[in-house]
Amino acid sequence: MSTNQLDKKSQAWSALFSEPMSELVKRYTASVDFDKRLWEADIAGSLAHAEMLSAQGVIGASDLADIQRGMAQIRAEIEAGSFEWKLDLEDVHLNIEARLTQLVGDAGKRLHTGRSRNDQVATDVRLWLRGEIDQLLPLLAGMQRALVNVAAKNTETILPGFTHMQVAQPVSFAHHMLAYVEMFARDAERLADVRKRVNRLPLGAAALAGTSYPLDRERVAKTLGFDGVCQNSLDAVSDRDFAIEFGAFASITMMHVSRLAEEIVLWMSQNFAFIDLADRYCTGSSIMPQKRNPDVAELARGKTGRVYGHLMGLLTLMKGQPLTYNKDNQEDKEPLFDTVDTVRDTLRIMAEMVEGIVVKPEAMERAALRGYATATDLADYLAKRGVPFRDAHEVVAHAVKTCLQRGIDLAELPLDELKALNPKVGDDVQQVLTLRGSLDARNVLGGTAPVQVRAQVERHLKRLGG
Amino acid sequence: MSTNQLDKKSQAWSALFSEPMSELVKRYTASVDFDKRLWEADIAGSLAHAEMLSAQGVIGASDLADIQRGMAQIRAEIEAGSFEWKLDLEDVHLNIEARLTQLVGDAGKRLHTGRSRNDQVATDVRLWLRGEIDQLLPLLAGMQRALVNVAAKNTETILPGFTHMQVAQPVSFAHHMLAYVEMFARDAERLADVRKRVNRLPLGAAALAGTSYPLDRERVAKTLGFDGVCQNSLDAVSDRDFAIEFGAFASITMMHVSRLAEEIVLWMSQNFAFIDLADRYCTGSSIMPQKRNPDVAELARGKTGRVYGHLMGLLTLMKGQPLTYNKDNQEDKEPLFDTVDTVRDTLRIMAEMVEGIVVKPEAMERAALRGYATATDLADYLAKRGVPFRDAHEVVAHAVKTCLQRGIDLAELPLDELKALNPKVGDDVQQVLTLRGSLDARNVLGGTAPVQVRAQVERHLKRLGG
Amino acid sequence: MSTNQLDKKSQAWSALFSEPMSELVKRYTASVDFDKRLWEADIAGSLAHAEMLSAQGVIGASDLADIQRGMAQIRAEIEAGSFEWKLDLEDVHLNIEARLTQLVGDAGKRLHTGRSRNDQVATDVRLWLRGEIDQLLPLLAGMQRALVNVAAKNTETILPGFTHMQVAQPVSFAHHMLAYVEMFARDAERLADVRKRVNRLPLGAAALAGTSYPLDRERVAKTLGFDGVCQNSLDAVSDRDFAIEFGAFASITMMHVSRLAEEIVLWMSQNFAFIDLADRYCTGSSIMPQKRNPDVAELARGKTGRVYGHLMGLLTLMKGQPLTYNKDNQEDKEPLFDTVDTVRDTLRIMAEMVEGIVVKPEAMERAALRGYATATDLADYLAKRGVPFRDAHEVVAHAVKTCLQRGIDLAELPLDELKALNPKVGDDVQQVLTLRGSLDARNVLGGTAPVQVRAQVERHLKRLGG
Amino acid sequence: MSTNQLDKKSQAWSALFSEPMSELVKRYTASVDFDKRLWEADIAGSLAHAEMLSAQGVIGASDLADIQRGMAQIRAEIEAGSFEWKLDLEDVHLNIEARLTQLVGDAGKRLHTGRSRNDQVATDVRLWLRGEIDQLLPLLAGMQRALVNVAAKNTETILPGFTHMQVAQPVSFAHHMLAYVEMFARDAERLADVRKRVNRLPLGAAALAGTSYPLDRERVAKTLGFDGVCQNSLDAVSDRDFAIEFGAFASITMMHVSRLAEEIVLWMSQNFAFIDLADRYCTGSSIMPQKRNPDVAELARGKTGRVYGHLMGLLTLMKGQPLTYNKDNQEDKEPLFDTVDTVRDTLRIMAEMVEGIVVKPEAMERAALRGYATATDLADYLAKRGVPFRDAHEVVAHAVKTCLQRGIDLAELPLDELKALNPKVGDDVQQVLTLRGSLDARNVLGGTAPVQVRAQVERHLKRLGG
Repeated sequence: MSTNQLDKKSQAWSALFSEPMSELVKRYTASVDFDKRLWEADIAGSLAHAEMLSAQGVIGASDLADIQRGMAQIRAEIEAGSFEWKLDLEDVHLNIEARLTQLVGDAGKRLHTGRSRNDQVATDVRLWLRGEIDQLLPLLAGMQRALVNVAAKNTETILPGFTHMQVAQPVSFAHHMLAYVEMFARDAERLADVRKRVNRLPLGAAALAGTSYPLDRERVAKTLGFDGVCQNSLDAVSDRDFAIEFGAFASITMMHVSRLAEEIVLWMSQNFAFIDLADRYCTGSSIMPQKRNPDVAELARGKTGRVYGHLMGLLTLMKGQPLTYNKDNQEDKEPLFDTVDTVRDTLRIMAEMVEGIVVKPEAMERAALRGYATATDLADYLAKRGVPFRDAHEVVAHAVKTCLQRGIDLAELPLDELKALNPKVGDDVQQVLTLRGSLDARNVLGGTAPVQVRAQVERHLKRLGG
Repeated sequence: MSTNQLDKKSQAWSALFSEPMSELVKRYTASVDFDKRLWEADIAGSLAHAEMLSAQGVIGASDLADIQRGMAQIRAEIEAGSFEWKLDLEDVHLNIEARLTQLVGDAGKRLHTGRSRNDQVATDVRLWLRGEIDQLLPLLAGMQRALVNVAAKNTETILPGFTHMQVAQPVSFAHHMLAYVEMFARDAERLADVRKRVNRLPLGAAALAGTSYPLDRERVAKTLGFDGVCQNSLDAVSDRDFAIEFGAFASITMMHVSRLAEEIVLWMSQNFAFIDLADRYCTGSSIMPQKRNPDVAELARGKTGRVYGHLMGLLTLMKGQPLTYNKDNQEDKEPLFDTVDTVRDTLRIMAEMVEGIVVKPEAMERAALRGYATATDLADYLAKRGVPFRDAHEVVAHAVKTCLQRGIDLAELPLDELKALNPKVGDDVQQVLTLRGSLDARNVLGGTAPVQVRAQVERHLKRLGG
Repeated sequence: MSTNQLDKKSQAWSALFSEPMSELVKRYTASVDFDKRLWEADIAGSLAHAEMLSAQGVIGASDLADIQRGMAQIRAEIEAGSFEWKLDLEDVHLNIEARLTQLVGDAGKRLHTGRSRNDQVATDVRLWLRGEIDQLLPLLAGMQRALVNVAAKNTETILPGFTHMQVAQPVSFAHHMLAYVEMFARDAERLADVRKRVNRLPLGAAALAGTSYPLDRERVAKTLGFDGVCQNSLDAVSDRDFAIEFGAFASITMMHVSRLAEEIVLWMSQNFAFIDLADRYCTGSSIMPQKRNPDVAELARGKTGRVYGHLMGLLTLMKGQPLTYNKDNQEDKEPLFDTVDTVRDTLRIMAEMVEGIVVKPEAMERAALRGYATATDLADYLAKRGVPFRDAHEVVAHAVKTCLQRGIDLAELPLDELKALNPKVGDDVQQVLTLRGSLDARNVLGGTAPVQVRAQVERHLKRLGG
Repeated sequence: MSTNQLDKKSQAWSALFSEPMSELVKRYTASVDFDKRLWEADIAGSLAHAEMLSAQGVIGASDLADIQRGMAQIRAEIEAGSFEWKLDLEDVHLNIEARLTQLVGDAGKRLHTGRSRNDQVATDVRLWLRGEIDQLLPLLAGMQRALVNVAAKNTETILPGFTHMQVAQPVSFAHHMLAYVEMFARDAERLADVRKRVNRLPLGAAALAGTSYPLDRERVAKTLGFDGVCQNSLDAVSDRDFAIEFGAFASITMMHVSRLAEEIVLWMSQNFAFIDLADRYCTGSSIMPQKRNPDVAELARGKTGRVYGHLMGLLTLMKGQPLTYNKDNQEDKEPLFDTVDTVRDTLRIMAEMVEGIVVKPEAMERAALRGYATATDLADYLAKRGVPFRDAHEVVAHAVKTCLQRGIDLAELPLDELKALNPKVGDDVQQVLTLRGSLDARNVLGGTAPVQVRAQVERHLKRLGG
């Protein structure tokens, strides 16, 4: 068995180099501390590559068997925690390859035939990310299911709908929950679109130009479950679109989370008191004994910044980079990893917390009664009786002004005063001024009438298989 | 005809208000200066809404006729530049509605029945953006075609492929161009995905909760060419995902542009001199008479920042916003508009400029000969003769070191010295050390061998209908 | 008088060019549409340059007189709106120089001696920005004054202080206003620091290397009020730190605005109703007649994204740019201009609006009584009597739990029950449980006790000269 | 000794809570994994607080002694690696306090008197950041010194100065290095400004409102070396400006690094070959045996994105947060920590690498001769003889065109042809057309003439104490 070049890396990179890398440089450039998380993808990619090399006759069947045996042992070592990760070996790829060569000799050295770390790392990251996406999709569904479950129990619960944080019109609390379902459903759509572009195989691009070995790239793609192969080797090793696109998906998802979190925090505030959270989702204060803080929602909202920041970092990273691979690209991993972790943990905990929300319908209804939430109903009432909408709007504005001065709600105006507003006002006017009357009236596709909301709940439950 | 509420806005918003908006506030909050660009979408949306209102019996046939007549005149006035946009009327919607009411009286006031500016503006922006997307898609195709056309003429042109800006391996210049085709093709894919989510109708959500009028939202969607309707009214008026997602698409596209621009700038530099640009794409200096600067490429690269910034602005805008519509959302327009303008102008000019690139093959080839671009070929040669790749790599590193010291290329090493490197080296070694030999050898799917590149050119031409 | 090279730019940049710039390129690269706003700085810089050239004997006294006369006319034309800005002349500099040469002939052509547009534009932007900073500093002071004025009237007004949006402890409303004064005071400090680095003269760097003319740069600096000259010509023409640093100042300032705006929006919500805003700062709804929306605060909050985006755009712009001037840098202006405009308009309107806030003390106090705001006072009471703080905290948590179950406040617990909590509780306990008692107790530097707050109001009034 | 509340946190936060925090929540909200890095600041802050509490008579002398003894042991345990960090105890503060109470009993429980984690963590972060700033300032000086040292050896080395990556004018390589010195000098200025605003004491603000204990905040500030105390308790606990401002400093610094890195990468490219780097700063390729890549510079350039991203994350975090402390703020730490680490490591390694640059003057000079670098000198020559600069510019453009067609440099034009360009051309013209002549001519303050550059080198050496 020949000597192992990789074992000598602590002395010098190759025969071309007259001195070893400085310790400072080694620490600055090594990625093994964070990219070892790719180990499983790295091994899977190597096995598929070796299998194809053997099928193509580039390496022998015994080489393949050696590689498979060696990799099995490496997997066992990593899972057992006994694998020794070496900073000297820079990254996950060289660590595994060096160990493989230790274990199986020349076969290990043949594994790198026809590939480079440039296409290898691109393959690993895509494989890994695809796996994470396949875990995130059910979490997004879970988030939606949690919201739909809350909705299902609250189609008739009346919440003051706000625009500009001013009471606008009464809405079904379920309807409000379903607004978030729409958001997370779009996120899932987007993630499925991202997946398509993640799931293409760069392996075979070698360093940048392709390789002189008769590789069967389609075979490797099939083994690894890729939808297709990258069609241009230069692009294959330098493309990080998929990481950015994932970052954009994640940013929008976290933005949605931040909106929901903001509302949970507000609703938990004593000034709203619309909901309560179970103690297990709250924290206390080291100084104020009365505190029960909705820390999870706040922290989720705060983590939005982190994910936005990673997206910006990735975009900055790729800006103006000439082709093909540049070392800058090593910086794609930590933001991507942290983005995945953050979105996963956040979706999981938010879904659990949302499902446990305790709704306080009286507080919501009381709040809806402050703020003339049915004023639009009165304007619509007039418009339906022939008053041009713009004129009806003005009539009601007068009525609201009167009520404000007296400190009463529109529904509390005596019928004769209502009638005095406009000749079109009839005896049936007061029923349109109730919260429930207002709600029921919005019986249009996508509207808040309970009958519509129940239909949406059904649609979602069916769609989500819940 | 009753008085027109909108005419009095300069006095006070409505009867509810005791004083008019302050002048400072009016200027600060008005959007008509920039949102008037939505006028065509606004009119289209209103006509579709009116047509449906009439079909549903909410307004009369004569109202519809009045509205159609009024809108026709407004369209004519805007196109003629005689329409008077008023800051007092805040935005494009009220400007058009107020003029309509001036022109046709009560029918104009009835137009706003069952809708709100909240769903109206969301509809307008989506309609407008869809139109812009439909113009961007061909521009993306044009960009790809320009690159493919350059490629088609340069499949055999040899460029030094770089990694880390160090000469790596010879590649076909066409192959390099096609790498960018892949990028812009992905951008087009992404844009088509964005379009799906843009093309949904919010109208009918009214202010936030839906409306009490018997609207037929599906009918309006069909009239306007939307793929479907937004299923939740609260989400419909507060969703700006589509703008952000477009911003993410645009950021990635501009990132691709910045990479291409960076290379054009470098290649134009005297130290590369790989290409030349026609004078019409260059500018001079007010002080240095010899200057011909690739301003367009530099500026395109610089504009990347602008588009990234808008994306970040939009994400920040939506972070933590409670439902539903908040005035913050008015800030979605300027970044979106400027993003569209920037991407459109940049794609158009870059495509034109790329098509006119003058390639200088001798300079490229000369550069490829500096830097041992065929060293990998020698390693592969050995590996194919049974030397484990890692050992072959080391042998070649030694050879390069020797050449470096003598100031010669690998191909210039005498055959006997090459043979002395390793017993496996045969008489045929020198042919693998030529640039052309190296190129031809990378005959793998996605590789740089001219035969592969020609196949890719064909594929793209077919795909692009060019 | 010789022919004017600039007049021929529409034909070709210079004799070196064989064709004119394409129309598309002209529109893409021209900056005059936005950089004409620099005209006053451009003229001031040119006059100072000419005066120095004359003093150094580089141009004659009559040349200087011609230039001064020509510039006076140009100033008049611009102010009168009769100056014709030409896209063909690219930017503000060439527009003014070409007009000058039209007006005064050869003297105009001599003006550019020893300078380049590279140092000229850097000088213009710095001069302009310094002028804007000198207008922003008083606006920041005005913002602080508005807040202090509200504070001065509300030192005894009790607001529930929140952490995690949960009622925490009672605070003086004035104290809360003064928190924002601290923020804007830091912004002013930061802006003064930025000004130091803005106020250095690049002129004299010429294109990049300095000039062969005997310029007296210190003289020009003195004429223009610069604190010093840039010490390195390469840096002088490529440095855009000052724009980024300004963008960072502006982002932090807008972040402060966004926090204040968020609170104003919340406080205006019916669920808080802590304040009211005058009608002139509110807008209505096109559909909901009862609405009075705090649009200004929302829009100010939304504009935060815009300013963050510009900062990110500028940082992206400069990332990885090789020295020295690259056309990318033209993209520094629009984000900088818009940042200045946004911060200026926002500070002005927010200060005006803040000063007009109507405080509703009863609502605030009522809210403070929901939420056991004095629980910490009870824990402190115990701790002062020797109970270790951590134990006191636990005792009070028990008491709060009891009160919660009964739906009463701590102050409503009978004295004997309070005493039963811990042997250290004495007859004086109930006075520490009132809001006012709690407020007065926090009599530490920076604390919320009215006596402290009044001292801070005095300090700020003195500092701000108000 | 009483029981320890903190020991029971795994059961429930306090008596108020009916169930323990869920495991998922615990992991999601705990910060000890990353904030334990604040331990030294936390202990220092606690000791200063305890010393003051004792001096003010709030705790006894024996309590203080116990706390000091306990903290000494904790310090020893942490330094020895034997301290057990518990996730159950959330953060560094509770971990240390809980251990202290284990060690010294009631005195430990008294330590938290008059403070809260809200002011404690703000104090810790500021103390820690101040310490890091005090390490970064010398690193910035070191970076400058490294550049000045290279400059000192290269004042006469001629580099082609570029604008638009086109050869512009010859410059001294030292001058180019000093451009970066200016940038890093500004960074150091900015960092000193940031330090002023970091170095203010929040402690004493307690949870948000101040405390009822007679704290002497000025004393604590003095003990800990703070320049002053935060004057408003609400601001003190919610202010994170200092972190953002640091992030802005760091982003600008990394932008400078990215520019230098970009140039190093370009200069190392075979097409420039202006410099060489020692092997210990380079890496090889796993596939291409000839490669020596400037990984450090590329990675430093790539890390710019990371730092920009953190800035954006922090800005997003604080956007729209109502006062005072919200859990979101916990997210300030990781981006801040990583920013500090990145800037520190990058400055250290870049300074080391820069100092070891091997300059290749022949290659630089050769490149300067391609591109008519002295064309401006010819124009200036004419202008000095009375030809208006704009006319001179045009004459030289013609001359360059002629030379381009013949493939020669301006200096190679025969004297009579030069004279034929314009009657003002004399026998002395050719000496201004040499690189050295051009260099020497730019003898203006900040210009590239070696005499000026040497003066700058002296100034910097004196300033930097090198």
